Amino acid sequence: MISEKMKPLVQNNSAIRAMFEEGTKMKAIYGEDNVYDFSLGNPNVPAPKEVKEAIFDILEHEDPVKVHGYMNNAGFPETRKAIADSLNRRFGTKFHAENLIMTVGAGSGLNIALKTVLNPGDEVITFAPYFVEYGAYVRNYDGNLVVVSPDTETFQPNLAEFEKRLTSRTRAVIINTPHNPTGVIYSEETLKKLAAILEKKQKENGSPIFLISDEPYRELAYDGAVVPYVTKYYANTIVGYSYSKSLSLPGERIGYILIPDELEDSENVIAAATIANRVSGAVNAPSLMQLVIARCVDCKCDVGYYERNRNALYGGLKEMGFDCVKPQGAFYLWIKSPVPDEKEFVAKAKEQHILVVPGSSFAGPGYVRASYCVSYETIERSMPAFRKLAEFYGLKG
Amino acid sequence: MISEKMKPLVQNNSAIRAMFEEGTKMKAIYGEDNVYDFSLGNPNVPAPKEVKEAIFDILEHEDPVKVHGYMNNAGFPETRKAIADSLNRRFGTKFHAENLIMTVGAGSGLNIALKTVLNPGDEVITFAPYFVEYGAYVRNYDGNLVVVSPDTETFQPNLAEFEKRLTSRTRAVIINTPHNPTGVIYSEETLKKLAAILEKKQKENGSPIFLISDEPYRELAYDGAVVPYVTKYYANTIVGYSYSKSLSLPGERIGYILIPDELEDSENVIAAATIANRVSGAVNAPSLMQLVIARCVDCKCDVGYYERNRNALYGGLKEMGFDCVKPQGAFYLWIKSPVPDEKEFVAKAKEQHILVVPGSSFAGPGYVRASYCVSYETIERSMPAFRKLAEFYGLKG
Repeated sequence: MISEKMKPLVQNNSAIRAMFEEGTKMKAIYGEDNVYDFSLGNPNVPAPKEVKEAIFDILEHEDPVKVHGYMNNAGFPETRKAIADSLNRRFGTKFHAENLIMTVGAGSGLNIALKTVLNPGDEVITFAPYFVEYGAYVRNYDGNLVVVSPDTETFQPNLAEFEKRLTSRTRAVIINTPHNPTGVIYSEETLKKLAAILEKKQKENGSPIFLISDEPYRELAYDGAVVPYVTKYYANTIVGYSYSKSLSLPGERIGYILIPDELEDSENVIAAATIANRVSGAVNAPSLMQLVIARCVDCKCDVGYYERNRNALYGGLKEMGFDCVKPQGAFYLWIKSPVPDEKEFVAKAKEQHILVVPGSSFAGPGYVRASYCVSYETIERSMPAFRKLAEFYGLKG
Repeated sequence: MISEKMKPLVQNNSAIRAMFEEGTKMKAIYGEDNVYDFSLGNPNVPAPKEVKEAIFDILEHEDPVKVHGYMNNAGFPETRKAIADSLNRRFGTKFHAENLIMTVGAGSGLNIALKTVLNPGDEVITFAPYFVEYGAYVRNYDGNLVVVSPDTETFQPNLAEFEKRLTSRTRAVIINTPHNPTGVIYSEETLKKLAAILEKKQKENGSPIFLISDEPYRELAYDGAVVPYVTKYYANTIVGYSYSKSLSLPGERIGYILIPDELEDSENVIAAATIANRVSGAVNAPSLMQLVIARCVDCKCDVGYYERNRNALYGGLKEMGFDCVKPQGAFYLWIKSPVPDEKEFVAKAKEQHILVVPGSSFAGPGYVRASYCVSYETIERSMPAFRKLAEFYGLKG
């Protein structure tokens, strides 16, 4: 009854979802407080109070036909201008409203970017470990995802292998910084090298290679870390952004893609992406939330909460002897499995009521992902359980 | 720079949009009140007050992490249950929450339905005149749209031709009732005949043919007209719905698809459609609006406003001698052009500051569409201009 393309997706329906359901069961048996669920990447910090205030103010003072109505498929001009102005203030860029297309979250934004540029058989490169949905997004447009294996020293992109994987069919590269699932921020040095490789290859190919930068975690950076703005390093960049994390609005599906003037033939690409937004059926990003963004463009959820969680979880696990990547941003901890098959580790953790996701779900076997968008108390309570795991594996803190 | 699939879409970027821009220019020159813009299908009646009340109540009393958060990709269980219960009360159906998948409007819902069932090369039949985006939606999944020519007597589907256009590759049929652009409601008799033809053909093919019923105008029906519920007539039906018109929330992108238990292998199809919602990048329908729907499921905007407009515009034009289809629902008047080339008529109307859309934009040449989701005063003020047109063409009222 269902299409051939959907069949494998139904069969593999995400290990994360299966774990979610098992987690629900375990909580019913052992009690909510006695299960340490680090499996889901759902923001647990509430939206900043400015969001609620903005909604009330908009509903009280603006015309409901406008607030809930259609607008240009790219979004309300005032929202797009507010975002451009904010980016320009923060990153010294020179964007204007027309560079922005408001989208139904970053997920829809990435799809629109890919729909705009991909032809069947085109290759899209990404770096393992990676958010598995990229594979589905690329296949939506009959592209082929090419995965570069990780640099397990730094978890910065493995540029030596990357250079070898570029071909005449390479049409786009997807990066994600701050990174899910490792928490790494791509350094300025990385971006410069990546850009140089791309410049060289697109010259050789005589056709553009798009760098798609998926940045829903941009505002979640710790220790004052700077997340370099990718358009500054490479002209053919398309940025995908979402307010899911910065304003804790994941269910509202509000984000944008940014296509800078520097991108080759940018006007035409912007026009096509705007139409892609429409014909995808999304039509436009949700209208009330667009108006909220115009008023809350520089607001943030309590990022300090996540940073405290990071310190507690990373610090605690390091002390016990676990080998993990220190997260610079996002809300994930990437832990090296003490045994080669990380699924064995995941199962052992489950015996201690700890739920983490096997790295294989991100093309990163041998590791597990722990999401620390949980209550601080969950992290505190999980420490004895992690300690038992450390003892079981004979780790030395 | 852009994909081959997007190129024709950019080239043809909708006559409606071009007209919209021309309308804006004309209004700047002649003044808002002196241009009679019937070109756009944007609801102009505000959302019912219950929507605002619901938003305030939700933000005051519910947990913001839930309100703005992720939920099952199919939507909040309480929203889906409220809708199922409402449909059951009104139509005597037996739906339950699991039959419903909340979507980013009907546009995204139709895309998800098509993504779920279409294989490349599959044929999808629809009836002219039709909402042109159907063509783009079908091509998104490499299907071919097959268009049945209109029955210009009744504008009910031309079933004699339909039967001939069914092939072994027919995978789906899209209907739209109440209908854009004619305002016709498909009668029970039509649906029964259509179902019988489909039953016969899918038996012959040995594979299912899906009837996709696009129903964003269901609540906009006049003179107490009943819009038959399509799942009652044909088991392999998927309903696409949107609150864009019934609650005047077009910008919010909130709707659903309904896959009844009677549909063959429905559980698998529902599972696939839920995943299609996710991998399309939409992920889920906007969360706050889902909670609004749970509370406003039986509310309606002021449909009487549109009915009064219909009476004024249809009545006025009939009296002047224009030949038009009496709208039973939706907010469009389908007017026969007094000259064979309706674009000539559209240009002549523009001289009178009347903006209407050529029927060719809906595969219905020889007609024009006038949207009466405008202020009543616009209709009143437009009457002398229409009268001049009638005189020019020598129509006899």
